[in-house]
Amino acid sequence: MDACLIIIGDEILSGRTRDANLQYLATWLGELGIRLAEARVIRDDPETIIETVNTCRSAFGYVFTTGGIGPTHDDRTSEAVARAFGVELELDARAEGWLRDYYGADGLNPSRLKMARVPAGADLLENPISRAPGFRLDNVFVLPGIPKLVQAMLEYARPFLIGGEPMRSQTVRGLIRESAIADELGRFQQRHADVEIGSYPFFEGERPGVALVVRANAETAVSAASSALATLLRELGADSVVVL
Amino acid sequence: MDACLIIIGDEILSGRTRDANLQYLATWLGELGIRLAEARVIRDDPETIIETVNTCRSAFGYVFTTGGIGPTHDDRTSEAVARAFGVELELDARAEGWLRDYYGADGLNPSRLKMARVPAGADLLENPISRAPGFRLDNVFVLPGIPKLVQAMLEYARPFLIGGEPMRSQTVRGLIRESAIADELGRFQQRHADVEIGSYPFFEGERPGVALVVRANAETAVSAASSALATLLRELGADSVVVL
Repeated sequence: MDACLIIIGDEILSGRTRDANLQYLATWLGELGIRLAEARVIRDDPETIIETVNTCRSAFGYVFTTGGIGPTHDDRTSEAVARAFGVELELDARAEGWLRDYYGADGLNPSRLKMARVPAGADLLENPISRAPGFRLDNVFVLPGIPKLVQAMLEYARPFLIGGEPMRSQTVRGLIRESAIADELGRFQQRHADVEIGSYPFFEGERPGVALVVRANAETAVSAASSALATLLRELGADSVVVL
Repeated sequence: MDACLIIIGDEILSGRTRDANLQYLATWLGELGIRLAEARVIRDDPETIIETVNTCRSAFGYVFTTGGIGPTHDDRTSEAVARAFGVELELDARAEGWLRDYYGADGLNPSRLKMARVPAGADLLENPISRAPGFRLDNVFVLPGIPKLVQAMLEYARPFLIGGEPMRSQTVRGLIRESAIADELGRFQQRHADVEIGSYPFFEGERPGVALVVRANAETAVSAASSALATLLRELGADSVVVL
């Protein structure tokens, strides 16, 4: 099963804010055996949201959106998702109750009440912190943008997800220039087609190094390939080779 | 003029690495008056790269890609971009010379030489640090993934870009809960249609606050709306209101 993340918000695209949800969601889904296959960062423009949600919900097993479900005029996600599905946005009595508890009966102004409106047929995703919920509609999970809320609310999304075998990975790390081992590494990958090997160069001070990430569903394949790769790195002259 | 960034790499989608190029590119383009309108993070799978490049290069004025132009087997961007354009990947003599200078004549193994192969008809984008170049083909700019290389190489992309009037922005910041001002803010935005107002809640210790980002091409519109908005925030009871 695979997933797509749609990050909604002009503040990410203008450079004002750096997204922090992709990395968390990727790791969280990976532990459930669901692969994050793509992410898109889009403007908070209704037509763009509608088109992107509709493209992604047919292309991927699960779609997560972050951002745009707050109280202000630039929070347009809930309405756009309702339109993407061709359903109405409706006031949800349970969500209204949560917001009434949180803000007090007098504090429930129209903007706050907007956060209790979800597309018809959606399941609520509770927000244990500031109470305004997200929701699930079919394979689309709609979450806020604030990372601590996303992290808390994903727990309410978990029962709706069917995972798979988690990917296993090990990293083989050594001090040698990536381009010095690339020929051999390519041949090694061909001989070990049961694993995927990603190669990531780094510098430790002035010394070049490479981190080779070995991934597969089968733990035995990962550990066998990692040991063989560590031996290869040493043979090619790498220093400080470790398997992490 | 608008732009799209395609971030290529399984390491971002697995959660191993957090992207740092989007924010830099967004800010850099903004100063040139080019709006980053979308970003996509995709797997380093050739078919996915081809499809995404072709979709984005017809939908946006400029397309930037990061990642996947190194020496290893998982660096597949250059070949995929050549295929997206229906042209051959060719060894570029000038790029080969740069790599020969950098690695020495004996050090130019097949994997390193791969970094001198670019699509037919491409302009090179120099890499003043580790010499392996990126390239431009039509409206597509192909860059590596390592942030310090991206930042250096963007200077070589600049002459190919036609910018516009940079967006101006000011931020009005005050200590008040976002949802307490959202009704009034929506009406304010309607009255000031010549600016775009983004609303971003935050906490300062335990106290809730809101940052309102006012954006437009015309500096006078931004400063007039920002002053009026600061007055409104004070009237609504916000503390510590400042225009930044």
